[in-house]
Amino acid sequence: MPGSSFGRILRLTTFGESHGPGLGGIVDGCPPGLDLAEADIQADLDLRMPGQGGASTKRVEADRARLLSGVFQGQTTGAPIAFYIDNTDQRSCDYADLASVFRPGHADWSYVRKYGVYDYRGGGRASGRETAARVAGGAIAKKILSLRGVVVHAACVELGGIAVPHDTVEAMSAISRPYFAVSGAVVPRWDARVEEARNAGDTLGGVVLIVARNVPAGLGEPVFDKLDAVLAHALMSVGAVKGVELGEGFAAARLAGSQNNDTLLPGGLFASNHAGGILGGISSGQDIVARVAVKPIASIAQKQQTVDKDGRPAEICVGGRHDISAIPRIVPVLSAMTALALADALLAQARIECVR
Amino acid sequence: MPGSSFGRILRLTTFGESHGPGLGGIVDGCPPGLDLAEADIQADLDLRMPGQGGASTKRVEADRARLLSGVFQGQTTGAPIAFYIDNTDQRSCDYADLASVFRPGHADWSYVRKYGVYDYRGGGRASGRETAARVAGGAIAKKILSLRGVVVHAACVELGGIAVPHDTVEAMSAISRPYFAVSGAVVPRWDARVEEARNAGDTLGGVVLIVARNVPAGLGEPVFDKLDAVLAHALMSVGAVKGVELGEGFAAARLAGSQNNDTLLPGGLFASNHAGGILGGISSGQDIVARVAVKPIASIAQKQQTVDKDGRPAEICVGGRHDISAIPRIVPVLSAMTALALADALLAQARIECVR
Amino acid sequence: MPGSSFGRILRLTTFGESHGPGLGGIVDGCPPGLDLAEADIQADLDLRMPGQGGASTKRVEADRARLLSGVFQGQTTGAPIAFYIDNTDQRSCDYADLASVFRPGHADWSYVRKYGVYDYRGGGRASGRETAARVAGGAIAKKILSLRGVVVHAACVELGGIAVPHDTVEAMSAISRPYFAVSGAVVPRWDARVEEARNAGDTLGGVVLIVARNVPAGLGEPVFDKLDAVLAHALMSVGAVKGVELGEGFAAARLAGSQNNDTLLPGGLFASNHAGGILGGISSGQDIVARVAVKPIASIAQKQQTVDKDGRPAEICVGGRHDISAIPRIVPVLSAMTALALADALLAQARIECVR
Amino acid sequence: MPGSSFGRILRLTTFGESHGPGLGGIVDGCPPGLDLAEADIQADLDLRMPGQGGASTKRVEADRARLLSGVFQGQTTGAPIAFYIDNTDQRSCDYADLASVFRPGHADWSYVRKYGVYDYRGGGRASGRETAARVAGGAIAKKILSLRGVVVHAACVELGGIAVPHDTVEAMSAISRPYFAVSGAVVPRWDARVEEARNAGDTLGGVVLIVARNVPAGLGEPVFDKLDAVLAHALMSVGAVKGVELGEGFAAARLAGSQNNDTLLPGGLFASNHAGGILGGISSGQDIVARVAVKPIASIAQKQQTVDKDGRPAEICVGGRHDISAIPRIVPVLSAMTALALADALLAQARIECVR
Repeated sequence: MPGSSFGRILRLTTFGESHGPGLGGIVDGCPPGLDLAEADIQADLDLRMPGQGGASTKRVEADRARLLSGVFQGQTTGAPIAFYIDNTDQRSCDYADLASVFRPGHADWSYVRKYGVYDYRGGGRASGRETAARVAGGAIAKKILSLRGVVVHAACVELGGIAVPHDTVEAMSAISRPYFAVSGAVVPRWDARVEEARNAGDTLGGVVLIVARNVPAGLGEPVFDKLDAVLAHALMSVGAVKGVELGEGFAAARLAGSQNNDTLLPGGLFASNHAGGILGGISSGQDIVARVAVKPIASIAQKQQTVDKDGRPAEICVGGRHDISAIPRIVPVLSAMTALALADALLAQARIECVR
Repeated sequence: MPGSSFGRILRLTTFGESHGPGLGGIVDGCPPGLDLAEADIQADLDLRMPGQGGASTKRVEADRARLLSGVFQGQTTGAPIAFYIDNTDQRSCDYADLASVFRPGHADWSYVRKYGVYDYRGGGRASGRETAARVAGGAIAKKILSLRGVVVHAACVELGGIAVPHDTVEAMSAISRPYFAVSGAVVPRWDARVEEARNAGDTLGGVVLIVARNVPAGLGEPVFDKLDAVLAHALMSVGAVKGVELGEGFAAARLAGSQNNDTLLPGGLFASNHAGGILGGISSGQDIVARVAVKPIASIAQKQQTVDKDGRPAEICVGGRHDISAIPRIVPVLSAMTALALADALLAQARIECVR
Repeated sequence: MPGSSFGRILRLTTFGESHGPGLGGIVDGCPPGLDLAEADIQADLDLRMPGQGGASTKRVEADRARLLSGVFQGQTTGAPIAFYIDNTDQRSCDYADLASVFRPGHADWSYVRKYGVYDYRGGGRASGRETAARVAGGAIAKKILSLRGVVVHAACVELGGIAVPHDTVEAMSAISRPYFAVSGAVVPRWDARVEEARNAGDTLGGVVLIVARNVPAGLGEPVFDKLDAVLAHALMSVGAVKGVELGEGFAAARLAGSQNNDTLLPGGLFASNHAGGILGGISSGQDIVARVAVKPIASIAQKQQTVDKDGRPAEICVGGRHDISAIPRIVPVLSAMTALALADALLAQARIECVR
Repeated sequence: MPGSSFGRILRLTTFGESHGPGLGGIVDGCPPGLDLAEADIQADLDLRMPGQGGASTKRVEADRARLLSGVFQGQTTGAPIAFYIDNTDQRSCDYADLASVFRPGHADWSYVRKYGVYDYRGGGRASGRETAARVAGGAIAKKILSLRGVVVHAACVELGGIAVPHDTVEAMSAISRPYFAVSGAVVPRWDARVEEARNAGDTLGGVVLIVARNVPAGLGEPVFDKLDAVLAHALMSVGAVKGVELGEGFAAARLAGSQNNDTLLPGGLFASNHAGGILGGISSGQDIVARVAVKPIASIAQKQQTVDKDGRPAEICVGGRHDISAIPRIVPVLSAMTALALADALLAQARIECVR
């Protein structure tokens, strides 16, 4: 209940601060008999490393996940799967002066108000570093999804105000492109936009597209745990995310019903997918399509006005190595959260399938 | 876990189909000693009745909530509070032909795929009628919020593609306007738009603004149960909602960090509120501001192509009395869900406050 | 979380005070397609009525359960199933003087300390009347169990200190005997013991045996949610229960390992069942056997010393119509709780079975 | 939901097998600002080490807990607290032959039936080694309890059929005695009983007394999450536990109501404590008193009949280093589970206290 767990049947619980000894998590509820190796997790963690594009920090983070339990002879046993990632590159000294002032746009202020105390070294639990545990958990979720052929794709479709027209199918190949871009053609323009922001000591936001394919119809629970509600929860829980939409999303608000309804065709098909693959909160069998708004990173290389712990006006210049945008590193994180939500829904549906 | 409950400490569990005997719910976890009467719940239920504007159905629904437990001598006792609303105006005959064909844009298809069976009379649990129980539960949540002076406002800021420029302060008076409009000036234009859609046998979507005032700093839990994530879950769980954004939302994706950061001022104030009152998933003490995209109602008065239960092409004309837009009736529902999420977060924070 | 819900996948949430308008509950998570009628619930509720033996009150309670949702054309739909029972025979006047003094052995004292307020009319949520909702919920759980042939039997094996030697097989026919006695021979002795207690203005306790047959092997979750732990939770949650043991229970503490181990035989059989059907917290396929200690009813027809709300010494004579023993009326309640725990475990196991 | 978590607000989630790399857990929900060091956890872990009496194995296990998160500058921050204990003395070879036969009285059989696969090396999650993580979690819970002066004592009151008359007050000093015995006088007799069992290649059970002092009145939730129900869940979830009773427990079944009721006295006192400190499921302010039945260890140094994985008759002699009794090592584990349950209840009550 205190917020470090996600999922009902497949439940990920995470721990760790950016500048403590390390971080990790426990995935409870994974079915037995799945092939799982550290390499499966490492492959996804590597996608979160800097280097997918010009927007990320040069800080070298060698995230190495170690499996601590739940796997025997290369297979899951049904026991909780714990993983651990050492913080090899923690340098608290970078953050020493943050003990006395609040960084604008960061969680410093709200955490102090919540807890009375604050681990100011790089944000503690509010650090983006926390997302490594999500990616590791998501890698396990993807193993479960693969039992039914479900695949989650994520792609950047807008960066720094430069959107790129796209088809959801293009998300499938984004993993191999810089920025996990939905289209290769936009990359040079995004490179220039990032460079421009870097020179201005500023940061950028963007929009990420999520497409989940082969999701069986029937996932999600009516009323409060609709599949789109749980997905919104999952995606919005990632730091820097300020908006989530399904299918047409905000554009649906401007369509007429006759435009927005998806005509059903024989064979379980639909003439369109304005709904984004979810009807009444339950998956329809179409691709699940979501878009996520990512705000610009709050740590900018500019002098900013703020207040100190005593409420007095202060000036701050957040130093250190910071990314220009949460994109592309947030992309595998959003993909992981989608996988966790879908795998949980898949296992929840088993209670009904088994009765039939 | 099967989806009919919302909240962790203050938990609403609902039941009821649109065409069964009635609907209701149980609010568990309400603190003792609060004044509560049926009239408190009725006041909010009345806001959900047709008549706030031209967009809603003429069907007369006299939703009368009866309190069944948890209140003694006019005060809550700490016991679960149950309420019940009779379905006085159920006419299953209207829906008899829906037993054989799937309505486009409705949950018929996905429910059948999920459960194998389907209560086709008006949508069962997928009916908008389910939201009456949310409104009743929200009325109880508001009683808890009022202990700390927290107030939730909701206003329609866009209908049928006609957006209205507004200040979040204007949401405070929307409750008294047609459509719960954020501004009175737009009402005639919306009236015309609704009339136009009605004549075309079509339906409209819109956007609702939520503003919660006096929310204390410190609410929400880090990582997975961030306050914005829980709000997104709460709001997206309402039928017809296709998108949720906090603060600048999708617009934040186009701002630079230097524009989007809110400067902290002495006295716990901020120079702006791009964040929408939430930093790192924890309330900052500023107004919480969210916007919700509402799709056009799927039941249109036009002939539509679809398939029948055997997968053969079919034609459908959804008769009956239907609203032109989920706005304005969805507005008090979104307000209720916001209140439920905030009251739950408020009670969750007690575990920390009491230790201090 | 505030205590009115039981179960993870099949979740019963109850409400209602003994002297309010009525009581009821919601069963969420019931699979679709099960035959369910009000008569199914009524049959179990009738077992809880006075008249199974000499130990219960003469008060006439006509508990009539009404189904409010979740059933369509005689079958469950997967939607939450709500039921409601009117309190037809509430007479608050009987309890008026209880507003000022605490009854020994009752929850008055601890509820006031917990909530600050107290619904003193017959105990509110602490009344035995609350268990009617458990029995109704249990009737639904039994429908699910019957899909796999699981049956729950409960029998009284000791009353007022008079124990009866028995075989667990005899529990199967207890439903038709006075006191739900495990053996007919003991009934006259129990009758005499009850009469003796009644004449003394006193009350009696006893022991109830639970036997669940045909439980498939593999139910229960390792570590914290072992099947025996969940059963202990379920059974101990019933008012008046002071002890729960599985298999040999406390007697196992006096056995040597060589005596207590159950030898495995070919064919999934065991040479004995000291374990009570649970090994390492997981069902073994043998009968699940539990015993439950029931304390004597706290309301005795004798003058008792106590204190009033202001802490001053006071005298109390709890009048009204009260049972001499919680047995036999608690027997169907314990049976219901066992069924709820087992049905939940059965549905939880589906997540693993479906993968295989 | 899959069983590796305990608690609602203070939630312990554990992982690890007896013969994997190590084990550990995450405590989520701990309030900020508590002093916490590895030494606090180590002190309790050391109580679980062999050496408290003659009944435990000579195997040297150096359980060293390392804190991985949630503590900054010696104080809890409100973030999840992770701890890890390396398995330094794992010798899988001891268990190689267990891959083919089921050990009587162990979880091998039921785990294989549940999961299809089985980590046979020493029991995997069913190993008693799992309890080290409970003890570590309990040490954190005790820190929270100490804020209100709550202390949990546990003592062995019966071993191998030799019970010792005792007063609950004596439990306070048991920590310093062999077997955590409730009285020093019985120790030589227990020593002789253990030696006798060891010579016979057999094992022993016993009974443990739990006494929690200074528990404030008002803890526990009515109906399903009564404090005694949650304690029964907590205690019964420990391997080898076969029975739990509160206060008089099974003896209460033989008392008359006039004997069992505890008379209330002025000043919040009671004339007796038959109830064991819980009335109507809510703590009364008296000492909470529970007794727990512990079965004899299933691994005996005798040849036993069983079946192999293919269902054929087989013979087994469980070698390796095994304890003669789960006592005394189970004693700190039961103490830890009690502390976890009480700390959770204490934090849950905050929601009501803060409103008052």
